[in-house]
Amino acid sequence: MIAVIATMPGGDGEVAAVRNKQVIFRDYVTGFPKESDMQVAESSIQLKVPEAEDYNNGILFKNLYLSCDPYMRNRMRPAIPGAYVDSFVPGSPLSGYGVAKVLDSRHPDYKKGDLVWGFTGWEEYTLLKSPLVLFKIPDTNVPLSYYTGILGMPGMTAYVGFYEICSPKKGEYVFVSAASGAVGQLVGQFAKLLGCYVVGSAGSKEKVDLLKNKFGFDEAFNYKEEPDLDAALKRCFPEGIDIYFENVGGKMLDAVLLNMRVRGRIAACGMISQYNLGQPEGVHNLMHIILKRIRIEGFIVSDSYHLYPKFLEMILPKIKEGKIAYVEDTAEGLESGPAALVGLFAGRNVGKQVALKKYV
Amino acid sequence: MIAVIATMPGGDGEVAAVRNKQVIFRDYVTGFPKESDMQVAESSIQLKVPEAEDYNNGILFKNLYLSCDPYMRNRMRPAIPGAYVDSFVPGSPLSGYGVAKVLDSRHPDYKKGDLVWGFTGWEEYTLLKSPLVLFKIPDTNVPLSYYTGILGMPGMTAYVGFYEICSPKKGEYVFVSAASGAVGQLVGQFAKLLGCYVVGSAGSKEKVDLLKNKFGFDEAFNYKEEPDLDAALKRCFPEGIDIYFENVGGKMLDAVLLNMRVRGRIAACGMISQYNLGQPEGVHNLMHIILKRIRIEGFIVSDSYHLYPKFLEMILPKIKEGKIAYVEDTAEGLESGPAALVGLFAGRNVGKQVALKKYV
Ligand SMILES: NC(=O)c1ccc[n+]([C@@H]2O[C@H](COP(=O)([O-])OP(=O)(O)OC[C@H]3O[C@@H](n4cnc5c(N)ncnc54)[C@H](OP(=O)(O)O)[C@@H]3O)[C@@H](O)[C@H]2O)c1
Ligand SMILES: NC(=O)c1ccc[n+]([C@@H]2O[C@H](COP(=O)([O-])OP(=O)(O)OC[C@H]3O[C@@H](n4cnc5c(N)ncnc54)[C@H](OP(=O)(O)O)[C@@H]3O)[C@@H](O)[C@H]2O)c1
Repeated sequence: MIAVIATMPGGDGEVAAVRNKQVIFRDYVTGFPKESDMQVAESSIQLKVPEAEDYNNGILFKNLYLSCDPYMRNRMRPAIPGAYVDSFVPGSPLSGYGVAKVLDSRHPDYKKGDLVWGFTGWEEYTLLKSPLVLFKIPDTNVPLSYYTGILGMPGMTAYVGFYEICSPKKGEYVFVSAASGAVGQLVGQFAKLLGCYVVGSAGSKEKVDLLKNKFGFDEAFNYKEEPDLDAALKRCFPEGIDIYFENVGGKMLDAVLLNMRVRGRIAACGMISQYNLGQPEGVHNLMHIILKRIRIEGFIVSDSYHLYPKFLEMILPKIKEGKIAYVEDTAEGLESGPAALVGLFAGRNVGKQVALKKYV
Repeated sequence: MIAVIATMPGGDGEVAAVRNKQVIFRDYVTGFPKESDMQVAESSIQLKVPEAEDYNNGILFKNLYLSCDPYMRNRMRPAIPGAYVDSFVPGSPLSGYGVAKVLDSRHPDYKKGDLVWGFTGWEEYTLLKSPLVLFKIPDTNVPLSYYTGILGMPGMTAYVGFYEICSPKKGEYVFVSAASGAVGQLVGQFAKLLGCYVVGSAGSKEKVDLLKNKFGFDEAFNYKEEPDLDAALKRCFPEGIDIYFENVGGKMLDAVLLNMRVRGRIAACGMISQYNLGQPEGVHNLMHIILKRIRIEGFIVSDSYHLYPKFLEMILPKIKEGKIAYVEDTAEGLESGPAALVGLFAGRNVGKQVALKKYV
């Protein structure tokens, strides 16, 4: 399906140049991102890593799956000094996690034909001077798309956030917000496997059903239909919350603080309800951190990628034995990427949002 | 100086009953506490622990020093369920930390003549059915009032909060708010002893001078004269803050979050700026917890009193060798207690606020 659009002279002969469809980031965004903040365009690319010295670790991908992740919103504004990730460059393609096949490589660790997951571009083909985050796909007896979710960055996020940050113990009361999403569905299941009581919140009846019937949460509620989040939490947690896995922030965090138990822990993973606001909402109940000796800890999954092999050892058997359920939501083709990405902030995704399936 | 006002028949003969001046808590308070929320009154007390069975661990104090502490404000409202401390009882004397002499005891661990510090009443004499928090005074070669401060609860607070919660390392950038107070002045000095760069904020020029010239802080500012707290922190911490010892909350916390470094730690000790507000202020910059992987941890000193002997081993030599400075502010007599207590919330105290010196 490679459309050769030109041939160009290369260091070692003629090299095919093909069409490369791309999702271009137009300009910094304020408020909710819109599809029109991105634009599908075409350029061309030679399917060979250049000979030049700055490509000594170069690698060329064909992208198979692209991952739509909420943190990408934070890259649509000028970078916060000291933050962990670059902003998108207006006029250039978006970048993010994906699953890809190596078409050419001058990097010693990767060779043509390798299947990988890691940082790539929102385009059909991506040429990198050197890979930023890149893992070889260790097991192809599961759908490749899983490496954008349960076996990739979001899976690692659930793992690190729950086991390393929450210090969970059997029998504890665990609350997860954005619970049906890529990260939340796994956190809830990890907590159930450990013998915790687990409640999740999500934004539709369908998602609440998933939580209770597919992911085995003990209880779940639709936060959009609860006039009083504090009351909803008190109903689900008459004894209070030991662990809160924070994906949402804002009003939910405020209500949770009122319901934490002494020596509770909050894994600060994300605050998606705040990403599109000019000024973030104020959180009022922080005194409860002191009164109840709460620990809140922020984490960024990429700090813990050295744990990936340990994570796989734990999760791969659980997937194969059917002990962990996984739901993903796939948008077909690169063109559908912008809508899928934007849809995260309206809760349109049901489960992990993936794009670009068509090109597999 | 005991004024015998009556003699009463006791189990073993006549027992003197004496005047007992008390500070009575009138009723729950909203907004800033006022002197008139308390009332000095007189009752009488027999200077003997009763023979009755429920006094089997009874103990009778003559109070020497009473401690004015900000957390007492939280006891002036109905208790928050699950909170660590009871509320005051309207119509009864306030209670709190103090230094006392044992006049009579049926408790096996204490005998007449012992000097102690711990929980007592805001009155001349206090009779307890059993002590709540009580330590024998281990060393009388320092002023006894120190056991309301540097050698008592606030000293332990600084110790636990800094060494146990902040995970401090030599060379780190440390910020302390309410820095000239009982807790803050010690935290700053502990951080200096460890080789940290230390900045404090306080509410007057006099206090800023104390911080720089008496307590050896590297830098200090008067937060009341800074129109922009973020800018003040950026001026003092061009490289950002590794450790924030949080005594104040609200706007200061919001500004600090903007200036934290990656993997910074915040010991949530107190939020005095919020104690008198009907609705606490909103804190907006919590996303920085995630972006910079910050750990915020609340603590309550009384959870860590088992560390008191270890703390004394560290601090007593430092006091005697003059390696730690200590400033206290003493109000004379029980009658001055309400004004001294209320003054904490206007920053009238310079250093640790003590009351009732006169009765020593
Ligand atoms: N710290 C890290 O390293 C790290 C790594 C990955 C992800 N994260 C964070 O983890 C969280 C979940 O990520 P994910 O990949 O699993 O995404 P996801 O849950 O699959 O998708 C986002 C979901 O968030 C919910 N949402 C959107 N706007 C909301 C709002 N205003 N209030 C409440 N919920 C809202 C929507 O579900 P509903 O229908 O339920 O509203 C939406 O489906 C995000 O905050 C993300 O930034 C952090
Ligand atoms: N977690 C625990 O176990 C524990 C134990 C003890 C104390 N604490 C907390 O530690 C903090 C300090 O206590 P402390 O005993 O050392 O008291 P302190 O600092 O000796 O006295 C309180 C000081 O707070 C400052 N202050 C008052 N209102 C303020 C406001 N609106 N904004 C900013 N600063 C304000 C004033 O100083 P300025 O002139 O600088 O404004 C005042 O002198 C308090 O928050 C207290 O609740 C916690």
